[in-house]
Amino acid sequence: MKSNSLFLTAAAATALLLASCAGGGNNGGNGNNAATSAKSPKYIFYFIGDGMSTPQINMAEKAVSEEGFLEFFNQKTAGKYNLQPGKLNVRQFTAAGLANTHAQNRFITCSAAAATALATGYKTDINRVSVTPDASAPYRTIAEMAHDKGMKVGIITSVSIDHATPSCFYAHCADRNEYARIDSFLLTTNFEYFGGGFVRWNTKQHKGLYDYLDQINAAGYKFVNTRKDFDALKAGDGKVIATIERTSTDTTSLPDDASLPYNMDLCLQKSENDQIVLSEFLSKAVELLYNDDKGFFIMTEGGKIDWTDHANDAVSNVYETIGLDRALGVALDFYAKHPDETLIVLTGDHECGGLTLGFAGTGYESAFNYMKNQQITAYSFSDSVKAYMKNKASFDFILKKIDEYFALGNEEKGLKLSDYEMERLKKAYKVHQDFVKNNKIMIPKEEYKLYYGSYEPITVTVTHILDNKSGVDWASFAHTALPVPVFAIGVGADNFNGYYDNTDIPKKIMQLADLK
Amino acid sequence: MKSNSLFLTAAAATALLLASCAGGGNNGGNGNNAATSAKSPKYIFYFIGDGMSTPQINMAEKAVSEEGFLEFFNQKTAGKYNLQPGKLNVRQFTAAGLANTHAQNRFITCSAAAATALATGYKTDINRVSVTPDASAPYRTIAEMAHDKGMKVGIITSVSIDHATPSCFYAHCADRNEYARIDSFLLTTNFEYFGGGFVRWNTKQHKGLYDYLDQINAAGYKFVNTRKDFDALKAGDGKVIATIERTSTDTTSLPDDASLPYNMDLCLQKSENDQIVLSEFLSKAVELLYNDDKGFFIMTEGGKIDWTDHANDAVSNVYETIGLDRALGVALDFYAKHPDETLIVLTGDHECGGLTLGFAGTGYESAFNYMKNQQITAYSFSDSVKAYMKNKASFDFILKKIDEYFALGNEEKGLKLSDYEMERLKKAYKVHQDFVKNNKIMIPKEEYKLYYGSYEPITVTVTHILDNKSGVDWASFAHTALPVPVFAIGVGADNFNGYYDNTDIPKKIMQLADLK
Repeated sequence: MKSNSLFLTAAAATALLLASCAGGGNNGGNGNNAATSAKSPKYIFYFIGDGMSTPQINMAEKAVSEEGFLEFFNQKTAGKYNLQPGKLNVRQFTAAGLANTHAQNRFITCSAAAATALATGYKTDINRVSVTPDASAPYRTIAEMAHDKGMKVGIITSVSIDHATPSCFYAHCADRNEYARIDSFLLTTNFEYFGGGFVRWNTKQHKGLYDYLDQINAAGYKFVNTRKDFDALKAGDGKVIATIERTSTDTTSLPDDASLPYNMDLCLQKSENDQIVLSEFLSKAVELLYNDDKGFFIMTEGGKIDWTDHANDAVSNVYETIGLDRALGVALDFYAKHPDETLIVLTGDHECGGLTLGFAGTGYESAFNYMKNQQITAYSFSDSVKAYMKNKASFDFILKKIDEYFALGNEEKGLKLSDYEMERLKKAYKVHQDFVKNNKIMIPKEEYKLYYGSYEPITVTVTHILDNKSGVDWASFAHTALPVPVFAIGVGADNFNGYYDNTDIPKKIMQLADLK
Repeated sequence: MKSNSLFLTAAAATALLLASCAGGGNNGGNGNNAATSAKSPKYIFYFIGDGMSTPQINMAEKAVSEEGFLEFFNQKTAGKYNLQPGKLNVRQFTAAGLANTHAQNRFITCSAAAATALATGYKTDINRVSVTPDASAPYRTIAEMAHDKGMKVGIITSVSIDHATPSCFYAHCADRNEYARIDSFLLTTNFEYFGGGFVRWNTKQHKGLYDYLDQINAAGYKFVNTRKDFDALKAGDGKVIATIERTSTDTTSLPDDASLPYNMDLCLQKSENDQIVLSEFLSKAVELLYNDDKGFFIMTEGGKIDWTDHANDAVSNVYETIGLDRALGVALDFYAKHPDETLIVLTGDHECGGLTLGFAGTGYESAFNYMKNQQITAYSFSDSVKAYMKNKASFDFILKKIDEYFALGNEEKGLKLSDYEMERLKKAYKVHQDFVKNNKIMIPKEEYKLYYGSYEPITVTVTHILDNKSGVDWASFAHTALPVPVFAIGVGADNFNGYYDNTDIPKKIMQLADLK
């Protein structure tokens, strides 16, 4: 499987592609051709915002500009980021492009097919992890190419390290849900650094992580899952799997689907000072992988942007987007020191949620300042609501909690609920109440899907109302086909200008860095 | 007012701006600096899609790729375009950027403030036409600068020539609705070519156009409003105002708000062979303005993309976007002949409608093939529905018409109406019926605004259902703040890469073409 001869490679098609990218005849010297770039990037940062397209980026930009937002953000994130006034890091990129995201067999892609495109330069079918559409052969990934060239490789994410996006950089299998196979691929990569949420190791019948420590050690990896051990990691420590502290690591369950905590809920963490955030995983990767020989390739995914999209939770979405933007800062700092050798590329794998920066009810007006009233993520609130409802909480009690955590109903804060909004909440309450009574959903399936997706109805209604009052809306609980922006800075950045396909992104990097 | 000394100019700030655009230290030679462009563009095409951002472009791209779409499009547009298989022209651009659109005093902009930004390089308040936010002083426009430099200038649009977007290139007043003042500005410009829908001349108390022919002639303009006269226009004819044939030009009303017909309704036109479409207005401009002396500056607006956004009518929106794309083809043909002297820039002024390429009810699936079942624009259908309802049409009669014009309810075509969809139609019918009976809207204002905006409720519900079944959705009847893509090709195109503000777009053109 790992023999290069079995791999289909995108490299062969690359020269042709870039030739056509630079086409359109004489384009006035826009330099949109790799051949004009004298140097090859030695240090490559590849950032992927899962579920992040233009609406998510611009919403975060707008939110950050609101009075009081910095204090709100820094308090909720337990001082992990110390966000300062100023524009987001994404504004520092000098090159921009737009990429279509469709999968081989569907207009709206999934994270596996999208990450396969971004990791290999090939379109594939839904759920495939860097294999052909019929799953009969693997596609060689850009991370594998970089590693074979002698570059040190890091794979970082805020979700589990064996989730769709990161796995497409090192694993090859028919279905993103084959975690056991994905995990076994991980240990054979010899990639120097994995950082982020837990790998599942042998899910779906998940066993305790420590049952696998022998295999991890046998594969030559140093395993680290405490702040103390993480901080102590230093260059020369060899191959590392760095993940987050969990009190439940030796049980059969992994909280929050094995991911890093939501940025917005960092202040809720019991051992808050020990939490390692995405930008720290990247800082450590840079520290460990930096070398003056062949350089490095580091993929960093902001994976929970997508989850907050799915849940239609705008405020938490802003927090996750900023989390990824802070990681960009680490790369930009490195770039400032190595401007002639570094390339940074940022894109999203797809849009998610159908986020719009406008809403029928608010027309031309927006009120992003309302966002500061949300106290916890929809995911956390949802857990509480389920417990309340199980205990037969009254509608008034629920309203009180909605006021407490979202200020909805608070007239002083301008968040009085209209009759129509109150009706929506009452309906959601009844849907949940009926579910508890009957152990099944009592409204038509089509209606449930439209209004609540697969989520807890009261929570979804609450974020919809707060988000709508703020002037944004969500059209879907799934991904959408909106093209994603591509931003680049550094060596060869101009190659990423234009409007192209997501498969072109890794091809451009491959050609620039001579990866085959 | 027309003295240059009174104008605030963006030119002074331009050098500084472009210096900072090219910033970020050593960026690996991405050439993102006008100083690196040896030549200045002599022929400048500036395209603006009103209400067009990434979702509109990608929806049109996807629709065009559907089997049978070409035939559908060519039939409905009465053979005006003869669309052939292949990618949209927008794909030929080599440079891309992303621009934020906010107005000086609102996150969600309007067409006047946005066009002021795009025409002058300055932010202003809502509804202002190329004047300061307090309306105390005019901003000099890029078209005025080009004209003063000796370039021939053309202003083209598919809406009326005195509408917000085009007027911001030649007029200066506090409110976009001051048509009389805007019209008087037009006649003092001495710009060589105006093409598109009618100017209103002295609205709101609109008088017949021919009452103003003396003034038009006195200003030295040749006025043309028939196909025959339009076709006969040739280089050397002097200054021209070319507009569309209307049988009602000498009455007090201008149909369709003085705009060109919707592309989708071209086949409904009585004198279909005489209709002049946007790309023809541009072809004629190129023919008349071409010169080997100082060159030309031509602004072309696809103005009715926005109107179909407002109406939440996806299929008509695709038609209008393609109409603008066909006009791009005229510029690209010119560019192919003059590659070393031409610059083409395309952007949108703002998104509109909150269009999403996904919908909660369809999840990850799309079915753009359903779009081919729509027979006329929502605007046209709406006119019919109002007449039916005035005549007390039954719900069954309305359903029959919905089937006839949208195939909704047609099971063979896969468009069976669900119970939920039927309920929505019944509700819309009742809202309209009650309105006819009572001469006022009988449901809460908030609810009407959310579901129907300011539109005829049955029609909006019909396009919502068809669009939703196709897998797209609309969040608003107003504009949204989604950033707009910027595409460029030709001399200095690389200056348009990156992520910046909409005011930067004209500044970049000004610096490249030495316009002050």
